[in-house]
Amino acid sequence: MKRGMSTLSLKSLGIDTYHEAVLFMRKDCCVCRAEGFEVHTRVRITLHHQHLLATLHTIEGDLLSQGEASLSKYAWERLGAHEGDKIYLSHPRPLQSLSFVRAKVYGSEFNMQEVRHILKDIVQERYSDIHIATFLTACAGNRLNHDEIIYLTRAMVDVGATLSWPKDLIVDKHCVGGLPGNRTTLIIVPIIAAFGLMMPKTSSRAITSPSGTADTMEALAPVDLNLKEMRHVVEQEGGCIVWGGSVALSPADDTLIRVERIMDLDSEGSLIASILSKKIAAGSTHIAIDIPVGLTAKVRSLERADMLKRLFYTVASAFGVSLKIIMTDGEEPVGRGIGPALEAMDVLAVLKNDRNAPRDLRERALMLAGEILEFSPDVKSGTGKMIATRLLDSGRAWQKFQAICEAQGGLREPCIACYTHVITSEDAGRVVMIDNRQLSRLAKLAGAPHDKAAGVMLYTRLDAMVEKGQPIIAIHAESKGALGYALSLLKQIPAIVRVEVCE
Amino acid sequence: MKRGMSTLSLKSLGIDTYHEAVLFMRKDCCVCRAEGFEVHTRVRITLHHQHLLATLHTIEGDLLSQGEASLSKYAWERLGAHEGDKIYLSHPRPLQSLSFVRAKVYGSEFNMQEVRHILKDIVQERYSDIHIATFLTACAGNRLNHDEIIYLTRAMVDVGATLSWPKDLIVDKHCVGGLPGNRTTLIIVPIIAAFGLMMPKTSSRAITSPSGTADTMEALAPVDLNLKEMRHVVEQEGGCIVWGGSVALSPADDTLIRVERIMDLDSEGSLIASILSKKIAAGSTHIAIDIPVGLTAKVRSLERADMLKRLFYTVASAFGVSLKIIMTDGEEPVGRGIGPALEAMDVLAVLKNDRNAPRDLRERALMLAGEILEFSPDVKSGTGKMIATRLLDSGRAWQKFQAICEAQGGLREPCIACYTHVITSEDAGRVVMIDNRQLSRLAKLAGAPHDKAAGVMLYTRLDAMVEKGQPIIAIHAESKGALGYALSLLKQIPAIVRVEVCE
Repeated sequence: MKRGMSTLSLKSLGIDTYHEAVLFMRKDCCVCRAEGFEVHTRVRITLHHQHLLATLHTIEGDLLSQGEASLSKYAWERLGAHEGDKIYLSHPRPLQSLSFVRAKVYGSEFNMQEVRHILKDIVQERYSDIHIATFLTACAGNRLNHDEIIYLTRAMVDVGATLSWPKDLIVDKHCVGGLPGNRTTLIIVPIIAAFGLMMPKTSSRAITSPSGTADTMEALAPVDLNLKEMRHVVEQEGGCIVWGGSVALSPADDTLIRVERIMDLDSEGSLIASILSKKIAAGSTHIAIDIPVGLTAKVRSLERADMLKRLFYTVASAFGVSLKIIMTDGEEPVGRGIGPALEAMDVLAVLKNDRNAPRDLRERALMLAGEILEFSPDVKSGTGKMIATRLLDSGRAWQKFQAICEAQGGLREPCIACYTHVITSEDAGRVVMIDNRQLSRLAKLAGAPHDKAAGVMLYTRLDAMVEKGQPIIAIHAESKGALGYALSLLKQIPAIVRVEVCE
Repeated sequence: MKRGMSTLSLKSLGIDTYHEAVLFMRKDCCVCRAEGFEVHTRVRITLHHQHLLATLHTIEGDLLSQGEASLSKYAWERLGAHEGDKIYLSHPRPLQSLSFVRAKVYGSEFNMQEVRHILKDIVQERYSDIHIATFLTACAGNRLNHDEIIYLTRAMVDVGATLSWPKDLIVDKHCVGGLPGNRTTLIIVPIIAAFGLMMPKTSSRAITSPSGTADTMEALAPVDLNLKEMRHVVEQEGGCIVWGGSVALSPADDTLIRVERIMDLDSEGSLIASILSKKIAAGSTHIAIDIPVGLTAKVRSLERADMLKRLFYTVASAFGVSLKIIMTDGEEPVGRGIGPALEAMDVLAVLKNDRNAPRDLRERALMLAGEILEFSPDVKSGTGKMIATRLLDSGRAWQKFQAICEAQGGLREPCIACYTHVITSEDAGRVVMIDNRQLSRLAKLAGAPHDKAAGVMLYTRLDAMVEKGQPIIAIHAESKGALGYALSLLKQIPAIVRVEVCE
């Protein structure tokens, strides 16, 4: 083999291209010429017997010397590369599974083998973002039938790691999302684990929102556990709240979600496969799914919620998983804080039975925990919420939460922002509208989720009466610059909280 | 305005990301933090009152100092940037037209305004490749009705430059493609121009094929003419063969084609809009369209050809353009060479009346030229091909071709590949099948169209008798790597040329 010819020495340039594997080579590199590589071609990189496909960018000038190449941060980490490592470059095999995607675009139906082939190629990063977008669009708009969604779910489970547990009943929950501050998971898991059911919960980080459940949990304890560490926490405490990204259950999902965010498109089929594949891979047998329905939530109409519900049941039953769908109110944020630490404080207030704890967060968590408890043969129908309430009020859920945090690496106090700015109502009257989207944007401009303490506190609710001069929003930031930037947004947009003056 | 806050000084890093606008900033850059930019967000760059959207990549380390930013080569050139220029960064406006694309994914119909809005955003580079792939997939698989294809054609004309000519009759031709080696254009244009009709031909580079007409022409003369230069050639010689991309007659088309190439997907609607928009923008009044039909051509059945034909007539009549659709045999490659230089050599042989010139290429070109000549009121129906033959045989077409090449910047010899590999027949017998798709793939893997000399020579035809050991295919490549890659394909697929042993 002419390995020597296509070998280059790695040099770090520190370029972060997000989740895109990029290879940097000199434009006049001899390997480029010998292999016929050009800008934007996909190149197969081999290092320490690991392979990765990357997109080639070339460099004119002297950032790289002859014989050197570099990788984007993502590719560097994926290959576990070190400065000076020798990488071997070659052409990728032709992407056969694209022909299945093309056939789908023209209306044909996927079979199991085809979906498996496509997902395998996606996980091995053989698809570019354009290929993934084509696949996702071909599947969107109700173009996957029930069988195809089942195949997709199966394939997403099969391409990743899976967990199994020594118990028959493993519960889980998922919220279809879109509601700022909706951090019920951090209250539900300790209630369920305190009761004695097993709940190995993985959550996601924020992609476009001010905080994901994993970000909020991270304000209180480490969440970057690997599969072995996660198993240990669950076996010891009966539950965990860890970041799904580090345990790699359903690895295709992260890739698909990343592209879907950019497309700003959710297809039912991939939504359902995404949610259920992670739960099935985690070994869950009984799953509660919360679908908030409301104008500013992800699911905006009861009609769409019903359609999703039917699909969820069909697919779950194919995997022998018990499902319970709960539709909830999705019209306004849950709790008061938006941003990792502020949401964590809401959660702590509920867990510690603080009398000022946000009632809506407490109620939502108890209702959902009750539904989950009723999966247990020991819990009579209609008594779940009562049991959940007792576990919370008695302090047992709080004890269990502390134990879980300790097992995950230690409970910590949420940090507090150095800079705050309170916005007061300009009128006396009734709150008639709260703009969830602009609230999220404000929290992000203030620094969330990167700055853990940053975000927004909301001091009022829909339909509440406010006085002139009464605080309605507080912006929290870790730097003066970030605070100023969030404030400048307020000048550009209509009121985030609209107050109707009473006659 | 706080312009100063979001201003950075440009430093060149020489990074080439092909047609992708990328902005490089320090990860800890104060503008990133202040504006809330994260890796992979789209950022609006302003320089000298010009705007460009780019994708943000961040850099850890010291390639950039505080206050500095860099751009990919493409973005740098688009903005006409210089070292030290101050760029102003801001958030792009939300992409409203994406909601039309989403609605289309869910089955709704486009109106004219929506298509115009989408195309405008695409031409202004506000769509990322992922957005474009979503749009194209949503339009593929017969999901555009007649009106929508007319809107798309209209919008593609409207977003670009248009030409008008001092004559009433402006002819053009187009081949729907899929037949390797089908380079009749290079023979037809000089015949038509020698007769005295005006034919301002723009051609495309390869999308998914081993060579586009523009790539083949480029093996013989420059094709990167701008609008003014093109007009000059046509006014002087009566015809031209230039690359459509550099005259920007339908600038959205180039972007769409670039992404379609990666998707490896052609949709009817975008195919028809793409073809007719360029002709209409070029000022053509009479257009002949060649649709090769055959199992391995782009159009595989007469049924699909008929469907395309009806669509073409419907859309053309909406623009007052005269159309002639000619369906031709698409069962096997035309000529012997596949790849820019190899096809150019076939063309030269026909134009020079070489006695070994490929007969099929000559016959096809003469038939089509005849059809086009009959657009002229001076040519009686049924006499076109005879006139075309006379112009070719007399050497007047060859003279005209040389004059056109000179006017475009000079005639040159096609280059010759350094590496060749001949494949011989394993059996004696009759050739019963030639797989055009795999032939094209082979030529592309060998380096075509990027490597001008790369491609495949086909030494046999359908129904020909071959001896055991007789050469049937030769692979030409400019690098050892590319040749090896092409050879590795042969091991994975069934025979490209199937020989049936005679009893």
